[in-house]
Amino acid sequence: MNPDEVSKAFVEHYYSTFDSNRSALANLYQDGSMLTFEGQKIQGSPNIVSKLTSLPFQQCKHHITTVDCQPSGPSGGMLVFVSGNLQISGEQHALKFSQMFHLIPTPQGSFYVLNDIFRLNYA
Amino acid sequence: MNPDEVSKAFVEHYYSTFDSNRSALANLYQDGSMLTFEGQKIQGSPNIVSKLTSLPFQQCKHHITTVDCQPSGPSGGMLVFVSGNLQISGEQHALKFSQMFHLIPTPQGSFYVLNDIFRLNYA
Repeated sequence: MNPDEVSKAFVEHYYSTFDSNRSALANLYQDGSMLTFEGQKIQGSPNIVSKLTSLPFQQCKHHITTVDCQPSGPSGGMLVFVSGNLQISGEQHALKFSQMFHLIPTPQGSFYVLNDIFRLNYA
Repeated sequence: MNPDEVSKAFVEHYYSTFDSNRSALANLYQDGSMLTFEGQKIQGSPNIVSKLTSLPFQQCKHHITTVDCQPSGPSGGMLVFVSGNLQISGEQHALKFSQMFHLIPTPQGSFYVLNDIFRLNYA
């Protein structure tokens, strides 16, 4: 797969997992992984998943608008930049968001998330 | 300076240069630099600056809403994630945008932009 296909597959996997079983996102992060969520800095897979599973809503659905990707340097990493809408169950209006991921290749031929920055785009 | 201060200083420098003298941004990119601008992929400092200086407006002003930053790995790089508004001269409404930069340290103790992804956030 080329980088655009890899990043698109990652994005689909990430958000379908988020929307169906958030705790399963633990597999995508490692101890050195960083999440900045609306300005709050969190490090390590357990802390990141704890944050994501404790968000103040149960059901949600991400709708992706754009996915851009670039190689991040000679080590085979990949930057993925996403924009979309987040529909929270029971809320009338969807929230717009932007998010970026820095994916690092694993020895097993997959990727993990080293960097994750999430922001809501308030109207 | 700590990473948050470096990224804030970079962002202020980048957008004040963009708003006053776009062609001077050439110094911030190198031959391997990549820009994805609204989905269009451009590589190399000359091509990137050519794109930025040929945008269909002369005067503009960026207003920054948020700046997030994270180290991008062991090589001393830095990821900077920006959201804000772009006011184009003569237009009534500002455009919301999100942009990310991957900054790589130079031997001279400064940084250059390896990765740059820009998206307008349509309402």
